[in-house]
Amino acid sequence: MTHVIGVDLGGTKTAAGVVAPSGEVLMSETIPTLNRDGGEAILDATAALIAGLVERAADAGISVSGVGIGSAGVIDAVAGTVVSATDAILGWAGTELVPGLSARLSLAAPSVQTVRAVNDVHAHALGEAWLGAAKGSSSSLMVAFGTGVGGSFVLDGAPVLGHRFVGGHVGHFASPHAYSDGVPLPCVCGGSGHVEAIASGPALYEAYLRFGGSAREALDTRGVFALASAAEALDGGADTGSADNPAAALCAIDVGAAAAGQAVGGLINILDPETVVISGGLADAGDLWWKPMEFALRQELLLPLASVPVVRAALGNSAAIVGAAKLVLK
Amino acid sequence: MTHVIGVDLGGTKTAAGVVAPSGEVLMSETIPTLNRDGGEAILDATAALIAGLVERAADAGISVSGVGIGSAGVIDAVAGTVVSATDAILGWAGTELVPGLSARLSLAAPSVQTVRAVNDVHAHALGEAWLGAAKGSSSSLMVAFGTGVGGSFVLDGAPVLGHRFVGGHVGHFASPHAYSDGVPLPCVCGGSGHVEAIASGPALYEAYLRFGGSAREALDTRGVFALASAAEALDGGADTGSADNPAAALCAIDVGAAAAGQAVGGLINILDPETVVISGGLADAGDLWWKPMEFALRQELLLPLASVPVVRAALGNSAAIVGAAKLVLK
Repeated sequence: MTHVIGVDLGGTKTAAGVVAPSGEVLMSETIPTLNRDGGEAILDATAALIAGLVERAADAGISVSGVGIGSAGVIDAVAGTVVSATDAILGWAGTELVPGLSARLSLAAPSVQTVRAVNDVHAHALGEAWLGAAKGSSSSLMVAFGTGVGGSFVLDGAPVLGHRFVGGHVGHFASPHAYSDGVPLPCVCGGSGHVEAIASGPALYEAYLRFGGSAREALDTRGVFALASAAEALDGGADTGSADNPAAALCAIDVGAAAAGQAVGGLINILDPETVVISGGLADAGDLWWKPMEFALRQELLLPLASVPVVRAALGNSAAIVGAAKLVLK
Repeated sequence: MTHVIGVDLGGTKTAAGVVAPSGEVLMSETIPTLNRDGGEAILDATAALIAGLVERAADAGISVSGVGIGSAGVIDAVAGTVVSATDAILGWAGTELVPGLSARLSLAAPSVQTVRAVNDVHAHALGEAWLGAAKGSSSSLMVAFGTGVGGSFVLDGAPVLGHRFVGGHVGHFASPHAYSDGVPLPCVCGGSGHVEAIASGPALYEAYLRFGGSAREALDTRGVFALASAAEALDGGADTGSADNPAAALCAIDVGAAAAGQAVGGLINILDPETVVISGGLADAGDLWWKPMEFALRQELLLPLASVPVVRAALGNSAAIVGAAKLVLK
């Protein structure tokens, strides 16, 4: 039976794996994304990564017939092009992702017949819907809270990409928590007062600083969680060296988690997915974030939705590889 | 060619029409919904309404093969039952809508082979997507601002109903505008701080009263618009008899419209529909509401969505009849 390759092309690294029809990742490889070198250089490196895996697979008697890509940026899944992207990958916007890879692979890996691409968050959600935390559900909503806030609604086995392939930008709607002294917090999208401006990892760190936390005590979001955990271990932070910083850390986590939960709860009322999957760095940060997040989430829910399952993503780093593979596996 | 009947079963009246395969409504009839008499009485009256139309159609040489119903309440579109409903229709929750009507029609109108039902807002949106304001769009989001706030996302010709048929409750997510003195406004769903608590017609009237408006000057939402229109006609209300009331009316409309627009803008970022349709009594209230609504909406949008068409519903009262008919026309 024929296998495919799934690629997770992110801002800092690109991972690819040979995926069996069952979804099992048989072999994989990761390279840094050449995020300062422009689209053509990234396509060259990605094609070489794929061709190398096709060769390794061939050595094991496995033929690779297709390549699915989950890529950072807004991806036109029909034309296979990068509609827009942030400066995290310079020169990525406008890149002819699928045509460019197909041309390169027609020489380097002629067994590859099909190449498809979607945005990496959609690939991630599709992986979780197929074989991960939402396995067996006819519809699922995944929301990832990390460097940004993104999501994807997977319906009957396909992510809802949107007419202009912008669907899933669930970090960019209004949050009552995204205010400071009555002024909406600026959002990376250029707007303000959005969910991402208070519920992302970096936003949580900004909240820590606004609440009087010191950069010396916590250098980043991870540091905020470390401070808060230490304070919790000491029974609420009553006796830590610096009383202000743990309090600021706990408050920042609470407000970020509450904003995240309220946002996801509202989305559940709108979409009524069978299963809800929470992903990203904050979802992995433990109960300090998860408990207030889920509390706020359930407080938002309409009565008939009270028992909706809300689960943590299960596939880890391989979710987007597996989901991208699914694009060309059928 | 065979025709069908579309039924719009609402809290106060039930309208039904004979619909041609083209979507044209050939004949129609309206009765009061027996909203104090329980589910069985409503089914009896609705079956009689349908049977009467089938007979009228037969007299004109038209055969009716199916009945589609858009009904108030959460409707299980597979079982054809009313999952839940508000007290607007006493005893409606739990009613075996499709089985009950089918049984009645098997005697009264044996030509009817198929009966299907969805929630009325979904039927409304499907009508607009098929032949109304979103005609020709592969996806559309309709949001109705009236007595409540509801909506439906129609994708590839079918409304996204949700796993528990609760999808489309777009009035029940958090709005930064749904606060008074820092306290979230109560919502009819039992929650608080939701879009519906500030952007519905009744909420707009409540805001007018909170802003110091008097019930003597405006008895209801319509009265608020009349006051505001009169004030606008007099160049900003500088010279009306009672200065406070027009100002309160204008402020209430502005905040309700801003909350509505902000909510829809956020939904567009999430769903990326090809076309957005705004419906309901407030959408029909003219520029006083529409302009600040659309301004707030466009302020929310991500850059690649800037040119999304936002249009007023086009089919009026027949939208739900036509959409319900579409359920059994194919």
